[in-house]
Amino acid sequence: MSTSQAQSLAYEVAAPAAPPKFPLDQWYVAGFAWELKDKPIGRTLLGQPVVLFRTADGRPAALEDRCCHRALPLSHGTLEAQGVRCGYHGLLFNGAGQCLEVPGQERIPTKARVPAYHVRERDRIIWIWFGSAEHREPTCEPPAYEVHSSGEYLYDGGVYHYQAPYQLIHDNLLDLSHLGYVHLRTIGGNASIHMNARMRVESDDSSVRVVRHMPGSVPPPTYTAAYPFRGKVDRWQEIEFRVTHLRIWTGAVDAGSESLDDPRRGGFHMRGFHGVTPETESTSHYFWTIATNPRSNPEETKAKVVEQTVMTFDEDKVVIEAQYRNMLAFGPRPLVDIHVDVGANRARRIIERLRQAS
Amino acid sequence: MSTSQAQSLAYEVAAPAAPPKFPLDQWYVAGFAWELKDKPIGRTLLGQPVVLFRTADGRPAALEDRCCHRALPLSHGTLEAQGVRCGYHGLLFNGAGQCLEVPGQERIPTKARVPAYHVRERDRIIWIWFGSAEHREPTCEPPAYEVHSSGEYLYDGGVYHYQAPYQLIHDNLLDLSHLGYVHLRTIGGNASIHMNARMRVESDDSSVRVVRHMPGSVPPPTYTAAYPFRGKVDRWQEIEFRVTHLRIWTGAVDAGSESLDDPRRGGFHMRGFHGVTPETESTSHYFWTIATNPRSNPEETKAKVVEQTVMTFDEDKVVIEAQYRNMLAFGPRPLVDIHVDVGANRARRIIERLRQAS
Amino acid sequence: MSTSQAQSLAYEVAAPAAPPKFPLDQWYVAGFAWELKDKPIGRTLLGQPVVLFRTADGRPAALEDRCCHRALPLSHGTLEAQGVRCGYHGLLFNGAGQCLEVPGQERIPTKARVPAYHVRERDRIIWIWFGSAEHREPTCEPPAYEVHSSGEYLYDGGVYHYQAPYQLIHDNLLDLSHLGYVHLRTIGGNASIHMNARMRVESDDSSVRVVRHMPGSVPPPTYTAAYPFRGKVDRWQEIEFRVTHLRIWTGAVDAGSESLDDPRRGGFHMRGFHGVTPETESTSHYFWTIATNPRSNPEETKAKVVEQTVMTFDEDKVVIEAQYRNMLAFGPRPLVDIHVDVGANRARRIIERLRQAS
Repeated sequence: MSTSQAQSLAYEVAAPAAPPKFPLDQWYVAGFAWELKDKPIGRTLLGQPVVLFRTADGRPAALEDRCCHRALPLSHGTLEAQGVRCGYHGLLFNGAGQCLEVPGQERIPTKARVPAYHVRERDRIIWIWFGSAEHREPTCEPPAYEVHSSGEYLYDGGVYHYQAPYQLIHDNLLDLSHLGYVHLRTIGGNASIHMNARMRVESDDSSVRVVRHMPGSVPPPTYTAAYPFRGKVDRWQEIEFRVTHLRIWTGAVDAGSESLDDPRRGGFHMRGFHGVTPETESTSHYFWTIATNPRSNPEETKAKVVEQTVMTFDEDKVVIEAQYRNMLAFGPRPLVDIHVDVGANRARRIIERLRQAS
Repeated sequence: MSTSQAQSLAYEVAAPAAPPKFPLDQWYVAGFAWELKDKPIGRTLLGQPVVLFRTADGRPAALEDRCCHRALPLSHGTLEAQGVRCGYHGLLFNGAGQCLEVPGQERIPTKARVPAYHVRERDRIIWIWFGSAEHREPTCEPPAYEVHSSGEYLYDGGVYHYQAPYQLIHDNLLDLSHLGYVHLRTIGGNASIHMNARMRVESDDSSVRVVRHMPGSVPPPTYTAAYPFRGKVDRWQEIEFRVTHLRIWTGAVDAGSESLDDPRRGGFHMRGFHGVTPETESTSHYFWTIATNPRSNPEETKAKVVEQTVMTFDEDKVVIEAQYRNMLAFGPRPLVDIHVDVGANRARRIIERLRQAS
Repeated sequence: MSTSQAQSLAYEVAAPAAPPKFPLDQWYVAGFAWELKDKPIGRTLLGQPVVLFRTADGRPAALEDRCCHRALPLSHGTLEAQGVRCGYHGLLFNGAGQCLEVPGQERIPTKARVPAYHVRERDRIIWIWFGSAEHREPTCEPPAYEVHSSGEYLYDGGVYHYQAPYQLIHDNLLDLSHLGYVHLRTIGGNASIHMNARMRVESDDSSVRVVRHMPGSVPPPTYTAAYPFRGKVDRWQEIEFRVTHLRIWTGAVDAGSESLDDPRRGGFHMRGFHGVTPETESTSHYFWTIATNPRSNPEETKAKVVEQTVMTFDEDKVVIEAQYRNMLAFGPRPLVDIHVDVGANRARRIIERLRQAS
């Protein structure tokens, strides 16, 4: 899709009211590479119904999910080499939203086209750019995520649909102190260890980093099953928040064997990717992968890690959706902040500033 | 029900705001004769909750579906020789809406009555008249549909409830070009034949007629199974739109044997009746029958035709409801017309004019 | 919970608009004693989401069902000796709403507390007091219901959730004439007997009493199975409406053996308790018990009485919810009163007067 096409097509999309509900000049996760197969996918992102598909050259495309003829979602259509064909009267559109064919007539009406969005595939993640009025064109490349492509890790992932605004998911991910209360049945362990672990919080204009080190810990069962630790371990938990996604990287080395501050440290790693994309103001998509580098029983260990991750995320979803329903029931009322909210509150300030700016 | 009763009872119904949402001076389909058995039927028609039943003399009756005592739907009640008895406190109403009995007291309050609607049974179809302020009384008889009563045809039918406004169903029925895309799995066949068949569209103040002839066609399997064709056939598709119902009559004769323009032509016929009645502004009832005149295996052929018709209508419902949800999601936005929309657009103009006039 | 705590905490609850939707200076049923076990219960009462639980001393407590930290319902939490611990970040609150612990920090923020409600357990019923601005403190004790604690009766009960306003349930309970139409399949019997039984209605500022005597009746099967009647019986039905609950006490003695006006009369008794508590303006909780004093096969008779009661209440629920949906569909429109509405109409006047006054 050429730049000029994307620009000229963009006029049909309603101009967002000021300030927009979400920071717009960002690459958001629209899906994973393995989701785009033989059928178009319909997904509402930042309030815009979008149809995602691959063209014959393998490149991802994203169009407004509405045939310009009679408004059927194009995601109800079928894929052909040239693009997506509407499932009602058969109009055919290419990845740039141009209508290539109107069955039953020779002439293609000038207005027969649908808006296209900028979309990129990088490291098995499909990214989409909506852009503010000033930045319809992306101002940067989408983020890399080498964990998916370096070959060092086994990973798997999925997508959750949340009946809750996306920032409540940020809050949850930026604060691992809830492990001891929400995840009693899975990875929770001792609540007070999680609540009282020393925590370092750093932030800048567009990111927040929360680091917790737990030296000399007893390694949890998943760790010992996956990696030949000799005894106690030095553990780390590192959370990096970006406006549209987070990394939660955890792991351990043999106690005293390496510096936890060395980014190239060895040991056992669990690396989580968390793309949190608003569907609407009150609902969200949560795209995740979990990657590990097990030395022993690699496939079995990966499967176990994924299974536990899913159980954990299921628990979070129950809590976050209940939290949101209750917020709606009570309406806007003051909340009390506590110590563990530092990271989440900084993330909220970043988003609020970007929202006002875009 | 005498005229004066219906008029005097009508005062309780809220006067519709101008212009009304639907053309009012029309006979709409309320149901089929065989639906009115031993229980009252509750059905909202043109925004009015109505209870339908038969009185002891076999005549259909239609009352506002609300007991005047404590507002329980009368359709929750039971039928007696004299009328319908409310299922809460037992008030009994006749087909004109008069209260005949109030259990526990001798005197029947003057105001104890419910509005009655004009209703007629003709050719196994139950028709209802709401009427504008000027035309509370029907200005004509309900339409005939001899296919149901001539004895020449075997037929069956049913009722769909649509989460979509009724005019989207008109659009669908007036344009058979969608067969090749929506009905791929059933009667679709070759899309380009359907899209490119020559089409004749005629219309007047209250009807639209779309005719397509396909001479020298290979007869489809259902046709050959039902009728002893000698080889190729001349096929026709005739759609007649009226404000409250459509006829879609299709069929074939041996190629070159008879004029397709002769209304008394022989051959194999499939005759569809389609009563489309608004339930509310955004939901609809779709009453249909399909009739055939098979020469071979009549009951088996009819059953097959009905089965395929149901599969086809199921497919339409999925598309039309998805279309409407998408229209709601995007709000009012321009659409692009193409060639096959001619018939549907004329039907929309007829309805808009009648709506403004009533 | 001390009085001063409840007062000081109350400020966070939004002041109700005048006039309130429900009489506020009343004890409403919040639940039954046996519901408060090892888990907190979340229940919206008079529009207020409330969490109910017992503290270690066995006393019931009721807090606003919203953690003051991040708004998760406290009913998603867990019970400890000291109170309820939030299921997200582990804040611990006692029965007065005081925060006793914030995991991860020493200091407890001054504002970390949740509003508490006055709650009492009496005769196995949990009562809650909301109170108007002038009467935050209860002005009386909650009602006694000795049937639950006297030891003379076997009883059981349950809770229904109604998609209907609570006054429609009052209407139903205050008028037993519907038995012959709604409860045809259970306790209905002959409709005209119920409709035409002589009825005495008395009322004062806060209660309505409806009494029906049916001397010399044939005892129904449940009665004869439970009690050694000698032949015909003198039956009574006594309904007492109070603003937040009703008693429906029925029974029979051997015909002519005792005065039905003697409150200490013997014979067979069925005593129903009906606590009707608004959940919201349009939904309700219906707490009920049914008690009997069978002489024969006590447990078996009780089980049969409870089973029939549940079937009867199921039928009422269908009717009342259909009635309410229809009222919404038709909007405010006049209704016609009949003879059997006397008791229900008096109850409505009492509630309207109290609502205006509080």
